[in-house]
Amino acid sequence: MAEYPVLIGGKWRSAKAAKTFQPVNPATGERLPDTYPVSGWEDCDAALSAAADAANELRRMPPEAIARFLTRFADRIEEGKAALVEQAHLETALPKSPRLADVELPRTTGQLRQAADAALEGSWALPTIDTKNQIRSCFEPIGPVVVFGPNNFPYAFSGVAGGDFAAAIAAGNPVIGKAHPLHPGTGRLLAEAAVAAIGDSGLPAATVQMIYKIDHQSGQRLVSDSRVGASAFTGSRTAGMALKNAADAVGKPIYLEMSSINPVVILPGALAERGAKVAADFASSCLMGGGQFCTNAGFVLLIADARSDQFIDEVKTAFDAAQPPALLSEGVAKGLAESVKALRNAGADLVTAPGAGPNGARHPNSLLRVTGKQFLAEPGKLQTEAFGSASLCVVVRDVEEAEAVLSHLEGNLTGCIYSDTQGSDEGLYSRLAPALRARVGRLLNDKMPTGVAVSPAMNHGGPFPATGHPGFTAVGIPASLRRFGMLCCYDNVRQHRLPAALRDQNPNGRMWRLIDGTMTQDSCS
Amino acid sequence: MAEYPVLIGGKWRSAKAAKTFQPVNPATGERLPDTYPVSGWEDCDAALSAAADAANELRRMPPEAIARFLTRFADRIEEGKAALVEQAHLETALPKSPRLADVELPRTTGQLRQAADAALEGSWALPTIDTKNQIRSCFEPIGPVVVFGPNNFPYAFSGVAGGDFAAAIAAGNPVIGKAHPLHPGTGRLLAEAAVAAIGDSGLPAATVQMIYKIDHQSGQRLVSDSRVGASAFTGSRTAGMALKNAADAVGKPIYLEMSSINPVVILPGALAERGAKVAADFASSCLMGGGQFCTNAGFVLLIADARSDQFIDEVKTAFDAAQPPALLSEGVAKGLAESVKALRNAGADLVTAPGAGPNGARHPNSLLRVTGKQFLAEPGKLQTEAFGSASLCVVVRDVEEAEAVLSHLEGNLTGCIYSDTQGSDEGLYSRLAPALRARVGRLLNDKMPTGVAVSPAMNHGGPFPATGHPGFTAVGIPASLRRFGMLCCYDNVRQHRLPAALRDQNPNGRMWRLIDGTMTQDSCS
Repeated sequence: MAEYPVLIGGKWRSAKAAKTFQPVNPATGERLPDTYPVSGWEDCDAALSAAADAANELRRMPPEAIARFLTRFADRIEEGKAALVEQAHLETALPKSPRLADVELPRTTGQLRQAADAALEGSWALPTIDTKNQIRSCFEPIGPVVVFGPNNFPYAFSGVAGGDFAAAIAAGNPVIGKAHPLHPGTGRLLAEAAVAAIGDSGLPAATVQMIYKIDHQSGQRLVSDSRVGASAFTGSRTAGMALKNAADAVGKPIYLEMSSINPVVILPGALAERGAKVAADFASSCLMGGGQFCTNAGFVLLIADARSDQFIDEVKTAFDAAQPPALLSEGVAKGLAESVKALRNAGADLVTAPGAGPNGARHPNSLLRVTGKQFLAEPGKLQTEAFGSASLCVVVRDVEEAEAVLSHLEGNLTGCIYSDTQGSDEGLYSRLAPALRARVGRLLNDKMPTGVAVSPAMNHGGPFPATGHPGFTAVGIPASLRRFGMLCCYDNVRQHRLPAALRDQNPNGRMWRLIDGTMTQDSCS
Repeated sequence: MAEYPVLIGGKWRSAKAAKTFQPVNPATGERLPDTYPVSGWEDCDAALSAAADAANELRRMPPEAIARFLTRFADRIEEGKAALVEQAHLETALPKSPRLADVELPRTTGQLRQAADAALEGSWALPTIDTKNQIRSCFEPIGPVVVFGPNNFPYAFSGVAGGDFAAAIAAGNPVIGKAHPLHPGTGRLLAEAAVAAIGDSGLPAATVQMIYKIDHQSGQRLVSDSRVGASAFTGSRTAGMALKNAADAVGKPIYLEMSSINPVVILPGALAERGAKVAADFASSCLMGGGQFCTNAGFVLLIADARSDQFIDEVKTAFDAAQPPALLSEGVAKGLAESVKALRNAGADLVTAPGAGPNGARHPNSLLRVTGKQFLAEPGKLQTEAFGSASLCVVVRDVEEAEAVLSHLEGNLTGCIYSDTQGSDEGLYSRLAPALRARVGRLLNDKMPTGVAVSPAMNHGGPFPATGHPGFTAVGIPASLRRFGMLCCYDNVRQHRLPAALRDQNPNGRMWRLIDGTMTQDSCS
């Protein structure tokens, strides 16, 4: 069977491919009938040239056209929901409901619509006007954006429909999306919906392009090409670092979401007050979706006492009772096995790892533990990310050791502290929170980190190696749009040559602008 | 004579130095009597540890204390003005008046006071609150900041008093400043004023630390150390890239201001209308301060006609009439000679390079020219930055060639277009502006780029290699502060544990916050 075409320059056309691949149904281990191309550099090059032209055209389009595309794209995704859910389930083994149909797909269309609103309203660009000096500035499109989507969210983080995509488009940039090779059919359906939405909105045909798979070298060339404005990547640390090195060398912005173990600290008062409930929440957060979340709780810190052992027992019971689901791929299962092995080699004891089911890509849910002393002897290795349902309990002797452990943590997306409701943990909280705060993008109280609300106040980011820069978030509009903006200043530029956002007249009466030091929705007086 | 001590951990103490150096008076070429240490890693290490402690203390200080320090520092600089002007003049040969006393020093104190206001007011941190989901976020201090100041602004970009310093402190971070070895005595006087201001304000003693000189390896270790939050560098591309590579490898933010040739495009209508005036402005911008500005106009594009040759003649006349001033150092003079040679080797003709004066570090003011065709044959080499008073005229055949030349430009801090006032250049402007806009941080009309106003709307930044990321500015408050912030999100965190900026109550009634999608100075309702 001939392979599916790629989407380049507004057309579905045959890839210039030396190789092809077939996705696998991870629930059964069976190869799916569809064949997809592994694109060579020639495809990347053609996509880059088309994107560069589209970027120039997009700069001349009104925000209404961009918003219309994003809105129509959301509509089209909803119209194609049945097929999208079927396809994503087949390729990822993620449950159709609620996960795919009722959680991830609505999240995805919600993001697209929020991005449309932000593009229309325009305040994301931080327009700033100094009428006395006639200097004006705002963020403007950075240029073509390459988006590498991850394996674990076939819609919401997809290179052709997810959060990075929505932010890049809303900021006025064309996107070259790399579908994830574990779910190329889902990417194809999304890209078809995007093409239809481009037709509905009059944007340049090459506003959205898609390739399925490329080799590492092409990926590195892509993110460092002179035609690219910026790139966004969600995935493993190894792959992310290779792209980061290539982009950094030539000063091309790249936003990465890489590894995170998402430390959870459970203080003694919380354990005494509601230990069983916390254990149930923790286990549920670890096990949900096979633990295949970037915000999966892979690390829990407990201060040793009888209740801490009981907590671990309670979590063990929950792990033992759960049937490991099919993971996203054999590769994920293998990676998880290797990480668990690395943790054990570094000194962690296996608390439990009940047998996995028989079919597909599975791995036992694994609970491990070490003492604080052991952790401090191997802090690097014992922070190995185990992508999947594996968590490490670190049982420290006292608060000093807790502080030492937290001070050895690398950057993470999230960090949680559970404390009692009556104030008995307040002293410990004050002591431990600063060390955790400095190392995570999002600090939670009394709540597991797994959910990432699409809120303007969200930070889905954090210090390296969770991401490449602690000032940016991948989720949360309008902040996520600014990653794909270039700061553009106009000095003494004539009024009619200014972008609408910087002219005296407020272009829509709603845009917030900093005019002569005052934040206002008014026009310049 | 014993060398001066370094400022580490709040104390002036002997450096752990293997070497020393003596600055030179560039006006005479004579060695100054003062001896300064070249710090080894031990000094850097001690400074980092002290800075890490200071960073933790600073997080607990109210914005009022930070603002008081910045304000008192500005006062102290003014109080020490006579000595500062004397010292900087001795070490840089820059004129005492107006440059040092009446322009740069007031600019520096103005920046410090603007930063104080921004720290007090707090909107720079973009506080964002989602009351429904109980998610809140804002920028918080990123951690100790290392600032490498440049040779050409002894106060305004100084590592211990300049724009990066002010922004880093106002964002709540301690600074380790590297004084520039061409003007260590000026750095010393500034640091003494900072120490006094720390005493006035009650900030941690290690809020400001200073070393004079380090080797390359120590610099690279410094910017990539785990205790550092971020670094800022202003200087040469070679030095900047070495630091960037080291910081990037471990995901430490580094903000760089490197090379820029600041293209100026003069359209035919402007030449016809006011060519002599534009030539005078251009020559004056090129020659001012020995051309030792990052925004010096090093490149001018003209469309060939009789008036373009006349323009070059007029500029030549101005270059011939000007006496080359003493440059900042023998090194600058040598670098300029090498750059001019590189441009000539790449095909540029020397229009004029009248003899330099007899004493000190001098180099002839150099005007060069190439055709558009020549430029397009060697676009890389012909963009060699010549730091000092040298400019390259690129005379293109027509608008197509102009567009091609502009499309080959690397990233720059600024780009200017001169057009006539009656509209005859409008078509050419529309055609050429987009290519220039995409390659510069600040686009000017009918104005030379040399002045960089300290305005909230300023962008002193631009695409690589002008800087490392086109989204950030080194000048302009509040935007410059955000470079030294980490995005910190709080999810379900109890009210009393939140930073003041994110509590329900607006902490000062003036701070702008995005609450439930609405920009407001109100408290949460």
